[in-house]
Amino acid sequence: MIDFYTWKTPNGEKPMIMLEECGLEYRLHMIDISAGEQKTPDYLAINPNGKIPAIVDHDGDEPVTVFESGAILLHLADKTGRFLPAKGAARGQALSWTFFQSGGTGPMIGQWFHFSTGAPDKLPYAIERFRNEAFRLLGVLDQRLSGRDFLAGDYSIADIMNVGWIRAGLPKLKEAGAGELPALTAWLERVDARPAVARALEKLERAKQDKAAQ
Amino acid sequence: MIDFYTWKTPNGEKPMIMLEECGLEYRLHMIDISAGEQKTPDYLAINPNGKIPAIVDHDGDEPVTVFESGAILLHLADKTGRFLPAKGAARGQALSWTFFQSGGTGPMIGQWFHFSTGAPDKLPYAIERFRNEAFRLLGVLDQRLSGRDFLAGDYSIADIMNVGWIRAGLPKLKEAGAGELPALTAWLERVDARPAVARALEKLERAKQDKAAQ
Repeated sequence: MIDFYTWKTPNGEKPMIMLEECGLEYRLHMIDISAGEQKTPDYLAINPNGKIPAIVDHDGDEPVTVFESGAILLHLADKTGRFLPAKGAARGQALSWTFFQSGGTGPMIGQWFHFSTGAPDKLPYAIERFRNEAFRLLGVLDQRLSGRDFLAGDYSIADIMNVGWIRAGLPKLKEAGAGELPALTAWLERVDARPAVARALEKLERAKQDKAAQ
Repeated sequence: MIDFYTWKTPNGEKPMIMLEECGLEYRLHMIDISAGEQKTPDYLAINPNGKIPAIVDHDGDEPVTVFESGAILLHLADKTGRFLPAKGAARGQALSWTFFQSGGTGPMIGQWFHFSTGAPDKLPYAIERFRNEAFRLLGVLDQRLSGRDFLAGDYSIADIMNVGWIRAGLPKLKEAGAGELPALTAWLERVDARPAVARALEKLERAKQDKAAQ
């Protein structure tokens, strides 16, 4: 059994999709980040960085705690042998596009959202900086996906890793002038059409509403 | 034989340290990012994101291309069976602290450098935002390293991943008021005292100077 701690955010969705894709059993613990539940002592004992998502995997000889969405996806791929090629060129690409998200589209689209929407003062220089970098990164993905169904051969953790921030950011970045990005747009539809992805997002939304109703 | 493409930056150092730690044979290709060499068609065929570092590993049945420093460290750990526990709680921690760097200290210290030093206008709100997040992340690392020699049990890719940006950022962030951070400071000295780390940094500095002299 896996204890899974998360909230409905682009990063929090990733392990949920992987758990559903792999058909693994898990207990879902909703950590309301708007109420600061990610900073409680109990949760900090799991992830000292005070962020969702995290898991504690009780299936082996000892409990295995993993935080950071990319680390969780790798752990679950190791565990199941699924959605990450075991070796060779395909594995190299899947690892590369997984880390591309962690240090690229994640923080850059996140900062663009902050400076364009969340920040108290609208600072044109900062908005433009992160918008331009987000546009560039979306262009890299669009070019990569031209003539390809998925980022690294078959559907893999690289796709699961990237889809959350693209789903959140693509419509708003298109409004801001990112262009058509046809291959990236088709890929998002392709990933979102997977039953496990739809199921993960629905379950997460329902769990968030249940928590709010408590 | 491994072709290794890099430049002397906090991210570019990481695979060099791993290659030296593992005693692997490699050909070093210096990609002068100040001259835009990371944007040439030849290099974009290796890393479509146009950033260093990257490798092409020719040792297996087919060439394996890997970009993003974290992906390269994982590939080399897979290849050699070194500096990453094969399973269990220790592997979970090593993966977690590896991704902590990719999405955390890397982009946040990088943005703090940009807004406090590189940006044409000094925007107090942006400087404070990234400084505070960098301070917080350094505090998380310092607490993690209190009573520990390394981030995840034995010395691992988690340490190699984190050390570059800490070496670059720690003195300046201390000047900016980050505090003493004794455990993090001792860890940096501990990692930098390793012969392979010193050798990697020296070789990279020399290669950079040789390239400049061409």
